Amino acid sequence: MNAEIISIGTEILLGDILNTNAQYLGQELAALGISVFFQTVVGDNPERLRQAILNAKKRADIIITTGGLGPTQDDLSKETAAEIFGTGLEKDPIASKWLEDYFKKRNRTMSENNYKQALLPIGSTPLYNDCGTAPGFMLKVDETILIMLPGPPIEMRPMFQKEVLPRLAEKQEFLLESLVLRVCGIGESSMEMEVKDLIENQSNPTIAPYAKTGEASLRITAKAQTVEEANTLIQPIKEEIYNRLGEHIYGEGDTSLEEVVGQMLIDNDLTIATAESCTGGLLSGRLINYPGISAAYNEGFITYSNEAKMKHLNVSKETLETYGAVSEQTAAEMAKGVARVTNSSVGVSVTGIAGPGGGTEKKPVGLVYIGVCVNGDVQVRKTQSIGDRQKIRMSTVVYAMDLIRRSLIKNGYK
Amino acid sequence: MNAEIISIGTEILLGDILNTNAQYLGQELAALGISVFFQTVVGDNPERLRQAILNAKKRADIIITTGGLGPTQDDLSKETAAEIFGTGLEKDPIASKWLEDYFKKRNRTMSENNYKQALLPIGSTPLYNDCGTAPGFMLKVDETILIMLPGPPIEMRPMFQKEVLPRLAEKQEFLLESLVLRVCGIGESSMEMEVKDLIENQSNPTIAPYAKTGEASLRITAKAQTVEEANTLIQPIKEEIYNRLGEHIYGEGDTSLEEVVGQMLIDNDLTIATAESCTGGLLSGRLINYPGISAAYNEGFITYSNEAKMKHLNVSKETLETYGAVSEQTAAEMAKGVARVTNSSVGVSVTGIAGPGGGTEKKPVGLVYIGVCVNGDVQVRKTQSIGDRQKIRMSTVVYAMDLIRRSLIKNGYK
Repeated sequence: MNAEIISIGTEILLGDILNTNAQYLGQELAALGISVFFQTVVGDNPERLRQAILNAKKRADIIITTGGLGPTQDDLSKETAAEIFGTGLEKDPIASKWLEDYFKKRNRTMSENNYKQALLPIGSTPLYNDCGTAPGFMLKVDETILIMLPGPPIEMRPMFQKEVLPRLAEKQEFLLESLVLRVCGIGESSMEMEVKDLIENQSNPTIAPYAKTGEASLRITAKAQTVEEANTLIQPIKEEIYNRLGEHIYGEGDTSLEEVVGQMLIDNDLTIATAESCTGGLLSGRLINYPGISAAYNEGFITYSNEAKMKHLNVSKETLETYGAVSEQTAAEMAKGVARVTNSSVGVSVTGIAGPGGGTEKKPVGLVYIGVCVNGDVQVRKTQSIGDRQKIRMSTVVYAMDLIRRSLIKNGYK
Repeated sequence: MNAEIISIGTEILLGDILNTNAQYLGQELAALGISVFFQTVVGDNPERLRQAILNAKKRADIIITTGGLGPTQDDLSKETAAEIFGTGLEKDPIASKWLEDYFKKRNRTMSENNYKQALLPIGSTPLYNDCGTAPGFMLKVDETILIMLPGPPIEMRPMFQKEVLPRLAEKQEFLLESLVLRVCGIGESSMEMEVKDLIENQSNPTIAPYAKTGEASLRITAKAQTVEEANTLIQPIKEEIYNRLGEHIYGEGDTSLEEVVGQMLIDNDLTIATAESCTGGLLSGRLINYPGISAAYNEGFITYSNEAKMKHLNVSKETLETYGAVSEQTAAEMAKGVARVTNSSVGVSVTGIAGPGGGTEKKPVGLVYIGVCVNGDVQVRKTQSIGDRQKIRMSTVVYAMDLIRRSLIKNGYK
């Protein structure tokens, strides 16, 4: 089966909003094993929507539209679509009931005009809207399925998950199951080199590498009739990748670095404190993003000046004068210092040059030292990031999170 | 003139990447006054690309494609397009020279294969690639202009700006000029209410409201023959909006809150220190995003525990016991304390409940107190954010930045 996605909305054509709906549906359909060959965006214009649907009808088994169901435009999109599929609109009793309940719950009176939202193509199945008034619908005429969904992602996504996905999955002879391995502390290209032969020699499952700021991932995707069968295909590949990448893999699926690090700290009854210069709070901000971190997070210092580094973290004046604020020695003393001063098991430090100014030949923009002290054992990593100030700071946060993780492992924690 | 955007790339159809190119081109073309009626996405497949280009050729004056020019796929996209436009490919001497220079600069030898990237449709104008090897091109046959650009935004955007935009602007009889007013400290709907009559009664310029986490904006867009003429149309509307929204407007164009706040501090020789609880460093991280802030930023504390609040910020035990850590009184003492302890002109504090746990009936998740102390004068703002932990923390950062800005203005700074 193949599907075509049509996004309706002038605001997408104008570039006012990003078409995240098409991305979301692309991912969901790929996971179902349904191919998408075309995505189209049209404005709120019946004639152009007609063209888009007619084109899609010629070449796709499933047409999914998003948007164009708002209270002012809904008749037009629905009418246009209904006409192409050779049917008319009528007030759907189920959708009417949903609307009545929606208004009743909110103690609002429903006007005759509101009932217009319950007008759906004759013969279609209404799709319930958890988070708004506009119902969606699914219509099958001959061999083509038309699915119209509301535009706001907050309404579209739950409707797709609860109302559309199970119905499409039923029609699929096979499914795609994916496992994402999250990788850190090794560049995307080095990661790819390590598993190049696997990527090239596999067809089921397939292995695809991805990169984002400071980290990378590998997605293993298997095609099978059942989830169990797919997982059986994934398992040996997963094991082989673990053999090759080892500690570089920090987690699977939706796991985040802050979750991994936060949970390791909590599970081992460890406490942590941060001392940041160029990241200026972003590292602690990321750590604290993990709910429940308050059990482990003690305190943080943003020490921009040398004075603050001496006063709060006990960095020695001599170290700062001899090696400079951006140095391995200062990073080490900051990490040790912040752990000692706050009486924490773990101390983390960041000192570097985020730019755009402040760089020299010996210490260029992007040079950052990260220190981690675990029960007195100190690791320092020197990193050289590229990009603008924002990018350098964001990558540094990831490298620091990763160094905390590795230092904990090195010290025997799991 | 109207244009159609075709994005070539299977990774977009699969939802692996967001189609930011289409958004970018949509915005740029709108600014030029060129209407876009359709956007299409196709995979790296010649037959389907052919369909997309043929459809576009029927209905658009300008077709802009992105992607499909990578070293392995370039012949296919270019050949497909050239064929539809009734021409063949030949080695372009200008593009060949660019490629030779590119390789010479990098001390790399150029293989015969590399020359294939210089194959362009006969009669086309090559477009220089600042940041990569694949040249783009512009081809006019009859009344249709075809523009093919590389896919990576880092290559596509500068090529569009330097090579395409001036050529398209020349053809336009009128242009669109926009001014964005950035608004904070008032909800999007309240903002809209204030200027509703203006939005409804204007056709040139038009006024459009937008919202993002914690802030909002109004875009005034005028259609005219020259930039001066457009600005003359924008000016009275801009003044009227300033009259109505006043201090809620924090800046224009690309200005960010950290730029406005950072520059106010620097211009007035003020220094600042931060004390954060639930935002955990994100506020200082945002402040420090402004380059040059080191002239104003003194120090920051992340004081999660009551002990840390007492020890570093001199918050009194009595206040914490009587009113709790999340209270107006604690926020005020934190702000005053951090300013005093660090000898800064301005102290900012944040204390609140980011969730998902920790909320009570009296102090629900999302409740945050923000304190700002300017030369001893303290303001506290109570905010109630909605959304998940991440959203609450991000909105709080915006509210805190805004409170710093307003407190500075209140104390006579500009």
